Amino acid sequence: MTVSPLARPFPEIAAVAGVRIGTACAGYKAWTRADTTLVAFDAGTTVAGVTTRSLCPSPEVEWCRANLPGGAARGLVVNSGNSNAFTGAGGAAASRAQVEQAAALLGCGAHEVFAASTGVIGVPLPQDKALAGVAAANAALGEASLLDLTNAIGTTDTFPKAAVAHAVVQGRRITIAGVVKGSGMIAPDMATMLGFVFTDAAIAAPLLQQMLRSICDETFNAITVDSDTSTSDTVLAFATGAARNEVLDAPDAPGADAFHAALRAVCRDLAHLVVRDGEGATKFIEVRVAGAADDRAAKVVALSIANSPLVKTAIAGGDANWGRVVMAVGKAGEVADRDRLSIAFGGVQVAAHGAVVPGYDEAPVATHLAGSEIEIDVDLGLGDGRATVWTCDLTHGYISINADYRS
Amino acid sequence: MTVSPLARPFPEIAAVAGVRIGTACAGYKAWTRADTTLVAFDAGTTVAGVTTRSLCPSPEVEWCRANLPGGAARGLVVNSGNSNAFTGAGGAAASRAQVEQAAALLGCGAHEVFAASTGVIGVPLPQDKALAGVAAANAALGEASLLDLTNAIGTTDTFPKAAVAHAVVQGRRITIAGVVKGSGMIAPDMATMLGFVFTDAAIAAPLLQQMLRSICDETFNAITVDSDTSTSDTVLAFATGAARNEVLDAPDAPGADAFHAALRAVCRDLAHLVVRDGEGATKFIEVRVAGAADDRAAKVVALSIANSPLVKTAIAGGDANWGRVVMAVGKAGEVADRDRLSIAFGGVQVAAHGAVVPGYDEAPVATHLAGSEIEIDVDLGLGDGRATVWTCDLTHGYISINADYRS
Repeated sequence: MTVSPLARPFPEIAAVAGVRIGTACAGYKAWTRADTTLVAFDAGTTVAGVTTRSLCPSPEVEWCRANLPGGAARGLVVNSGNSNAFTGAGGAAASRAQVEQAAALLGCGAHEVFAASTGVIGVPLPQDKALAGVAAANAALGEASLLDLTNAIGTTDTFPKAAVAHAVVQGRRITIAGVVKGSGMIAPDMATMLGFVFTDAAIAAPLLQQMLRSICDETFNAITVDSDTSTSDTVLAFATGAARNEVLDAPDAPGADAFHAALRAVCRDLAHLVVRDGEGATKFIEVRVAGAADDRAAKVVALSIANSPLVKTAIAGGDANWGRVVMAVGKAGEVADRDRLSIAFGGVQVAAHGAVVPGYDEAPVATHLAGSEIEIDVDLGLGDGRATVWTCDLTHGYISINADYRS
Repeated sequence: MTVSPLARPFPEIAAVAGVRIGTACAGYKAWTRADTTLVAFDAGTTVAGVTTRSLCPSPEVEWCRANLPGGAARGLVVNSGNSNAFTGAGGAAASRAQVEQAAALLGCGAHEVFAASTGVIGVPLPQDKALAGVAAANAALGEASLLDLTNAIGTTDTFPKAAVAHAVVQGRRITIAGVVKGSGMIAPDMATMLGFVFTDAAIAAPLLQQMLRSICDETFNAITVDSDTSTSDTVLAFATGAARNEVLDAPDAPGADAFHAALRAVCRDLAHLVVRDGEGATKFIEVRVAGAADDRAAKVVALSIANSPLVKTAIAGGDANWGRVVMAVGKAGEVADRDRLSIAFGGVQVAAHGAVVPGYDEAPVATHLAGSEIEIDVDLGLGDGRATVWTCDLTHGYISINADYRS
């Protein structure tokens, strides 16, 4: 597996106060790499989360959904190499046993331990390995860094992905650090994507949940690699409160704005990194739609463009085939008027008012498309609705990775 | 361009009485092949049609939509190599001029001449070439066969696609012959697909329209290659009445059932042929969904499976990755219960009631997936709704064809 040409270096991240990490090899596959992660949080840590909208979720997802309303977290267990999805009662029991063992080791209630698994669907999590793995990770608590954690939760990822931001809240410098895994089966409403955000800020769970939900809509739910949505997608945010700011408990609390901006920056960076590790990706594509009837319609049109295999293969080939963009607008099902539609690549107007612009010169567009950071602007000319989504091109690499992934 | 491994031989088709075909080279690209087709119909020919739901259609599509309610046809003009879509007022004027010239040559009203163009989007149809092409095709009327027509309307097609069926209507043997072009940008609600059906039966236009609309829903609108929908898709059916049966004018008219069955068979065969020429296809996939809340829900789930890049790449790799089928069911958005879901490949039960079947043996499934005719059955276990759709696998060939199509 070669590293994505769109990769970014792992950022410098100091440990987040109140968070201890341990990793171990449970051997979910025939490998010696760490595949089991246990994270321990100080007492008082709050939690928020967003999970896949899949109607066939894993038991881990169901467990998170059931316990997020409690708002309290002391532990997180992550398995890599086995998603434990669609594994019936046996898979659910194994996951439950692993969570209960983690709770016993951490000295907390099971409802304070969150869980996520990623990997092949349909193979029950082997309970003996899961229990041994979490015990070994517990024995190593405090020894692993965020980079170690990122490597331990990865599957087909070609590089470790993390982001960090700081904010000053009530005079105290707080840290927000996030990691993410995922490079395929990426689509709105979560993907085979696990994202974990850790902060030392003190923030009440309901406010954290409210912020995370709205931020997800414009970050993790605004990316797509292949339009497929996994059964296991989960984004969890943990706030230890170790920075000892006064607990943020309302959107207008002093410092809440700064925290929100930093959280949004981390989530947006993480979402972009997932696209940058899109399976087979060679180009990072930002699709901006303006002039739609409303923001919702703009996002539907933007995703229709971003999910179109013909648009994505054209970009892969460096082909300024804006006709395929017209096609994708036309099929989106939202109001469109061919004769008001304008399209630009890399800021160069290509089509306006239903036809190619007079004297269109393809040269600057071709130069833009030869690069690896692509911008597509579409103006529907109808209203004020706008949206931005991100995707990558569709290449031979995607086929190679997915035509024989399981073997 | 190598011929699709899923190709079928061109069938034996006698000419359809009342239909005369001429082809010519207008030179829409730098080639010498026929790219312009004129079809002349005897007086009294009725017509029905279904066009793309794209909101950015070509002027040819708009012309057909406007004139189909008239129900009368004397001519059909088809251009290949230039779709004339998104070409503004200039493209619309060129198409109109070509239609009017065809009407003058055929001695009929312009509203009795139908039009379709296929090829690159966004390049205005060159009016001088279009007029010269249709004049040359008119001079050759009667010289071309259905095979010639099929070759003249093709673009990235790797083999000519046609189907024929007969029915006995009121003691008279009638013929229904259809041709189709299209191998990419194929999705429900039409694709870059042009389908033309010719029959010598006598049938009133409203009844023909009613039959074609409902048949399209279970044939042309039940196939998908890449989920993309073109701006130009058109299926037209022309009935010359030369067989001199009493005009069919109601669903319960004598012989209407037999005609409907034959029309349905032709449309289904044509739809399957489009999938068999899917860009890069190496496997023909039938997806059957049963046990849904209703037929509509079943079709949504079936298309979610058939459009999933991860399912399609797994099939390409011969990988019995039924977990990806679970994923596609889960993301479809229709009611699903993980613990009632059953999945079979090639008639072999793989998963039932939310988990892999006890003692699952992958060998017979692997054998089935090594073939080129794949069957996927999904039972949602909820109700009586069912649907069948057809697609192909997603391979390196698709990427190669589409990453540099325009050049």
